[in-house]
Amino acid sequence: MNFKIINGSVTAPKGFLAAGIHCGIKKNSLKKDLALIYSEVPSIGAGVYTKNKVKGAPIYITKEHLSNKKARAIICNSGNANTCNGQDGLLKAKKMAQLQAKALNIKTDEVLVASTGVIGVPLNIDAIKGGIPLITKKLSIEGYEDATEAIMTTDTSQKQIALELEIGSKTVRIGATCKGSGMIEPNMGTMLSFITTDVSISPELLDEALKSSVNISYNRVSVDGDTSTNDMVLILANGLAENPTISEKGEDYYKFIEALNYLNVVLAKKIAKDGEGATKLIECKVTGATSESNAVKLAKSVIKSSLVKTALFGSDANWGRILCALGYSDVDFDPYKVDVYFTSSSGSIKVCGQGSSIEFDENKAKDILLQDEILIEVNLNIGDIAASAYGCDLTYDYVKINGDYRS
Amino acid sequence: MNFKIINGSVTAPKGFLAAGIHCGIKKNSLKKDLALIYSEVPSIGAGVYTKNKVKGAPIYITKEHLSNKKARAIICNSGNANTCNGQDGLLKAKKMAQLQAKALNIKTDEVLVASTGVIGVPLNIDAIKGGIPLITKKLSIEGYEDATEAIMTTDTSQKQIALELEIGSKTVRIGATCKGSGMIEPNMGTMLSFITTDVSISPELLDEALKSSVNISYNRVSVDGDTSTNDMVLILANGLAENPTISEKGEDYYKFIEALNYLNVVLAKKIAKDGEGATKLIECKVTGATSESNAVKLAKSVIKSSLVKTALFGSDANWGRILCALGYSDVDFDPYKVDVYFTSSSGSIKVCGQGSSIEFDENKAKDILLQDEILIEVNLNIGDIAASAYGCDLTYDYVKINGDYRS
Repeated sequence: MNFKIINGSVTAPKGFLAAGIHCGIKKNSLKKDLALIYSEVPSIGAGVYTKNKVKGAPIYITKEHLSNKKARAIICNSGNANTCNGQDGLLKAKKMAQLQAKALNIKTDEVLVASTGVIGVPLNIDAIKGGIPLITKKLSIEGYEDATEAIMTTDTSQKQIALELEIGSKTVRIGATCKGSGMIEPNMGTMLSFITTDVSISPELLDEALKSSVNISYNRVSVDGDTSTNDMVLILANGLAENPTISEKGEDYYKFIEALNYLNVVLAKKIAKDGEGATKLIECKVTGATSESNAVKLAKSVIKSSLVKTALFGSDANWGRILCALGYSDVDFDPYKVDVYFTSSSGSIKVCGQGSSIEFDENKAKDILLQDEILIEVNLNIGDIAASAYGCDLTYDYVKINGDYRS
Repeated sequence: MNFKIINGSVTAPKGFLAAGIHCGIKKNSLKKDLALIYSEVPSIGAGVYTKNKVKGAPIYITKEHLSNKKARAIICNSGNANTCNGQDGLLKAKKMAQLQAKALNIKTDEVLVASTGVIGVPLNIDAIKGGIPLITKKLSIEGYEDATEAIMTTDTSQKQIALELEIGSKTVRIGATCKGSGMIEPNMGTMLSFITTDVSISPELLDEALKSSVNISYNRVSVDGDTSTNDMVLILANGLAENPTISEKGEDYYKFIEALNYLNVVLAKKIAKDGEGATKLIECKVTGATSESNAVKLAKSVIKSSLVKTALFGSDANWGRILCALGYSDVDFDPYKVDVYFTSSSGSIKVCGQGSSIEFDENKAKDILLQDEILIEVNLNIGDIAASAYGCDLTYDYVKINGDYRS
């Protein structure tokens, strides 16, 4: 590892401030619902967005504002997705950017907008308008915790991280905060993740780095198969680390990518583990595959299966459901070559050999599956490529949260 | 309608007998686990099978036996899927056919084999061997209830039906029994359905009729997105109705297809309504589409969404989740033209107009959604084609059944 984990999140890189407040979108006044992240100096940005055809209004505005690859601030509300609100939604998303830009004395297209929460309810723009002066005043290095809290909806844990690395003998930092718990499914984002860095990098490479990193992290997570309408991953880079600007794919770029990938995979796993109602993080690692795309498809099919998810909730070594999920993934493999292992902090056990039942110690399997982070390893034994996908178990609480939820 | 519903099931057509017993595969001796359906005269058959790459051993044997399009008996056990059991599974599936053929004094390849239940546990062939003399002796016209009971696993209701129609001034009957509750997902079968008829029809047209009918019925059902390893739909036709043999696609063929489609759609809805833990049947009908395949994809995306399913469990008119599910279906449509209606025995209500929130009476919506059969109508307003898909809500009991289930 060419990097180390440090304390903090989006304000760890030089020149970034953050804040989070309650402005009145969520009914409960103890719950923060407005977050702001700001770079004190001009910075560049990149974004990756949901592929859902029904997109939240903020997606359109943020894409438009990032078309020049410049951005200095992210304003995000939780409690209302500002989606399926027609023209009114677009006007309000734009208004959020305008109001925030004015308060920061920057250009409107330097402000990126995000929303998360219920769909189809008109956004209370007055609450946001009322909150913007306060949140702008509260911007600070210490504000990152409040910002992280303010983007949460049904999340039960904060998801943030910061890393430090050396590039060109300069100290570079990357920080991130993210949220995601329901409506989580591969194919972009499927949650919100805001990343800041003081690295100096060309806008083109920042864009490419973000896309490739999202692809092996958030895009490999599925909580419930529902690709949200509002998901986005945004990165701001202000160059204050003063490293020699990364403008080609050399050693510096790959060092940066290594750290960025690590950061995003950690957050992706946090999202999976905090899936709505989840009690367990499930990683399915498919090995012995003939291609990465096949390995990913198979691994996703396993972690998305309701039957696999409920079996793991019950700590039941029902590997037959894993074989079944592999079988309907539309990927070619030989069922009679598949080996399956369960691994956790309690040990590792082989439960299926050459696609068939083998004898194994059911008590040991139970012990392994009672832990809260489970690795399902599937060896196809037909190649040498591996890939992982991340999910969680399906529990009573998922039903409870979504059967009676209006943020 | 050119047909009427009559009492009974697989033994309603002339010349068919059935039986069901407990032979010892299920631990609970009060639960039947072996079913037999038999035509007293030679008959032809057709089948449609799971597309899962991991297939139960019976699938291979039944396909092989049906290659000559002739079949007179179906032997089916519940409690064990005989899947992922390697060579041993294939030998035992073949053995089931051999033993049953001997008991009936017919050829081995006239017997079709099916199994449903847990995956990856060796099949207790001795129990079946012990049961075959008894079940053969018990064959009767009245045995259809026992046969239906014997193919059930987590099903909570019997699923059977019989129809009568006139073809060429002769009375023709079609009867069927089916099961399906978990591991239910479009793409064939995904359950067991055994259909009998005394119609006289060419093997080729029987095959074609079955395939087209499965496509608009069982293949439009999803309970949990898990395409099972063992699903099959089988039809036997013995010609005892003595109608002029249907050998071309004329009036008689279409009369037969109309009745067959009705029968299979009724059973498909029964499967959806009896989805594991389900409290509600959900039909999503997409209208105003430009093609049937698009309408089906969109309708399936809605009824498969965990968030839609949990919302309906909670009788929550959360139409935003429906828009979201349409949006990630990979079908092209205009989100700003979509109207959404909820309908049940309590009335009908429009909840979304032109892809946006509209005012509606939330109490009336709640009343409608509290019923146990809900129609979600999505009008795309871009064409004139419609199609439906069938599913159910996602409940605490689905988690309970699958989080702690070993049949």
